[in-house]
Amino acid sequence: MFKFDTLRWRDGVLEMIDQRALPARVEYLKYDSAAAVADGIRSMVVRGAPAIGCAAAYGVALEAQRLIHKPRDAFLYGMEQGMTALAASRPTAVNLYWALNRMRAKLDNLRDATVPAAADALLAEAHAITGEDVRLNRQMGMHGAALLNDSSRVLTHCNAGALATAGHGTALGIVRSAVEAGKRVHVFANETRPFLQGARLTAWELQQDGIPVTLIADNAAGLLMRLGEIDAVIVGADRLAANGDVANKIGTYSVAVLARRHGIPFYVAVPISTIDPVMPSGACIPIEERAASEVTGYGRTQWAPSGVAVRNPVFDVTPAELVTALITERGVVFAPDRTKIRAHLAG
Amino acid sequence: MFKFDTLRWRDGVLEMIDQRALPARVEYLKYDSAAAVADGIRSMVVRGAPAIGCAAAYGVALEAQRLIHKPRDAFLYGMEQGMTALAASRPTAVNLYWALNRMRAKLDNLRDATVPAAADALLAEAHAITGEDVRLNRQMGMHGAALLNDSSRVLTHCNAGALATAGHGTALGIVRSAVEAGKRVHVFANETRPFLQGARLTAWELQQDGIPVTLIADNAAGLLMRLGEIDAVIVGADRLAANGDVANKIGTYSVAVLARRHGIPFYVAVPISTIDPVMPSGACIPIEERAASEVTGYGRTQWAPSGVAVRNPVFDVTPAELVTALITERGVVFAPDRTKIRAHLAG
Repeated sequence: MFKFDTLRWRDGVLEMIDQRALPARVEYLKYDSAAAVADGIRSMVVRGAPAIGCAAAYGVALEAQRLIHKPRDAFLYGMEQGMTALAASRPTAVNLYWALNRMRAKLDNLRDATVPAAADALLAEAHAITGEDVRLNRQMGMHGAALLNDSSRVLTHCNAGALATAGHGTALGIVRSAVEAGKRVHVFANETRPFLQGARLTAWELQQDGIPVTLIADNAAGLLMRLGEIDAVIVGADRLAANGDVANKIGTYSVAVLARRHGIPFYVAVPISTIDPVMPSGACIPIEERAASEVTGYGRTQWAPSGVAVRNPVFDVTPAELVTALITERGVVFAPDRTKIRAHLAG
Repeated sequence: MFKFDTLRWRDGVLEMIDQRALPARVEYLKYDSAAAVADGIRSMVVRGAPAIGCAAAYGVALEAQRLIHKPRDAFLYGMEQGMTALAASRPTAVNLYWALNRMRAKLDNLRDATVPAAADALLAEAHAITGEDVRLNRQMGMHGAALLNDSSRVLTHCNAGALATAGHGTALGIVRSAVEAGKRVHVFANETRPFLQGARLTAWELQQDGIPVTLIADNAAGLLMRLGEIDAVIVGADRLAANGDVANKIGTYSVAVLARRHGIPFYVAVPISTIDPVMPSGACIPIEERAASEVTGYGRTQWAPSGVAVRNPVFDVTPAELVTALITERGVVFAPDRTKIRAHLAG
C-alpha cells in the first residue's frame, strides 16, 4: 500500500529517500559509490536493519559499476576497500554484514568472470536482495497477522515499517497484512527519542496508508498499558543473538519489561537475515553510541544547557525471556530460546 | 547552594522565574492577581507540586492586596472567585489544594478582622508556607542523604529540584544534602519527554551547583540499569494517595518498574503536604492531559506529521508496591502502605 520507495535504482544510481527530512519533505538523494552509501548509512539518510542491508548491497554494486573499467586486480582491491567502508558505517544492525557477506560470496563465485560481467552480476544480486526483502516481509506479515485479533491496539517502538525495509515493513508489515486481511488495527506509536523515528516516520507512514495511529511520548507507554489500552506490542530488531536476545532501538527493553508486567504479548518481527547465529547472547552485541546533540536538542534547536554531559546509546538488548514470540518469514517461534532458534534456522 | 529563586516577593508583587525559558534565558515574570498566578501555573511558568502550592498561596495573598479597598462582602466574594480560579489551574498536584485550603482556613479565622488586616495576615501566611517549604526540604534532604552511599549514581526523572519548590528541592534536595555531607553523587537525569524538565531544568540546576550530571533520553534508563550503572532512583511526587500510590510525571512508572526488575531502590521524596489522605488509591487521582503540540514538536519546530492523533497524559501512577521508601520531612517510610502512612501522618 505504501507508495514511497525507501530506496530505488534509477538511471544507474541508487536513490534513497532522505529519512532525516521526513515527514516535512519527501526528497530522494542520489548515490554512486560505496563510500557515498556508507556516508548515507552513517548519517541516517537510510536506517532500519533490512533497509541498511539493501543499501549496503547496492553500495557494493555501485562500487563495481564505478570500477568497471579498471584492471581486474585494481577492481578487486577497490571492491575490498568499498566493502570495508560499508562495514564500518554502523555497528549494531547485523543485516549490514549479512548483505555484505552475501555480496562478497557472489563476488568470490565470479573469479573467472570479466570485470563487467562481475559488476552486472553484483547489481543483479543487489536487486535480488531488495526484491526478496519485500517478499519476505509479506510472508512475515501473514504469519504475524494471524496473531492479531480484530480491533487490536498495537504499540510499536521506533520505525520497523516500509521505511526500515525495501517495502511493506517488518513490525508495521504485520499491521499492514492484518489490515489487508480485513482486521481493524489501531497503532500507538512511541515517539522514540532521541531520533524520533516513531513521531517522524511511523506516524507519517501509517497516516499515508490510512491506518489509525496515535502518537505518544515514550514515557506514556506504561500508563496506557496500565489503563488496558494496549493489546500487543510489535517491534523490529537490529540483531537477534543465537539465544533469542534482541538488540533493537533504545527503549525497546523498557517496553518489553512493561509488557511483561501487564501480561501483554511482546512480539519481535525479525527476518532470518537479522538473526546472528554466531552471536551467543545479547551481552556481546556492540551497542552504538551517537552524538550528544541528538539528546540536547533537535535540528538547530538546543534545549539542554550547553556543556552538559550526555550518554546516547541508541540500542538496547531485550533478553529472550521477555519475548512472547519471534515472527520470521518462515513462521512464529513462541518463547524463543537457543534450541528453537537453531531448529527454525535449519528448517 | 542554588542561587536562583523559583519565586520571590518583591515590591508588593510576586516574581516567578519563567521555567519555560530555562536554561536559555533567566527571566522573572511579575504577577499581581490570583487570575494572573493561575495563568502562570496553567502555562507552566511555575511547575513542581511544592512550587505550585507556594505560588497559589501568593496568588491568594495578591488577590487580597488587590481587593484591599473593597467593602467586606465584595472582598470575600472576590477572594472566593480568586481561589476558584487558582484551584482550576492544574488538576494533579495536590499541593495546590493543600495551599488553598490553608489560605482559606486563615481567611476563615479572620472573620472579625478588617479587610486590610486580613490581607496582611494572608500575605504573612504565604510567606510562612514558602519559608516552611525550604526548611522541610532541608529536613527531607537530611533523612534521604542517609540512604545514599558515597559515590552513588542516582537516576532522577523530571525536575524535583530547587526549581520545583521554594528552594533546595525534594529529590534533588536529597542529592544536595548528601553532597553537603561530603558524599560524592553523580546524577543521571532522564530528559523527561514531552516537556523536557530533566534536560532543561534538572541538568541546568545541577550544573549551576557543580554537581555532576549526565543527561540521557528516557529510553536509555533501562540499558543503564542493566549495565549496573545506577545505584538508586529518587523522584518527587505530585500526589501521594493514602495507600502509598504515587502520582508523578509521566514515565515515573516505567522507571519504577525497571528499578524493581534490577533490584535498584526506588525512593520517593514527598513532603507531608503532597500526601492526600482522602484519596484512597492512585486509581482515583485525576491525570491531566495537555496539548498535542507538546508531543508533536518543541517550540516552533514540529517534527511529527500534521494532523496526527496524540495522547498526552502528563502524569502516571506508580503503585506503592514498587516504592522502596517514602522520604518526608519527618523521616523515612520503608515499604509504604496505608497503615504506615497513617501512622507517619499522625506521628
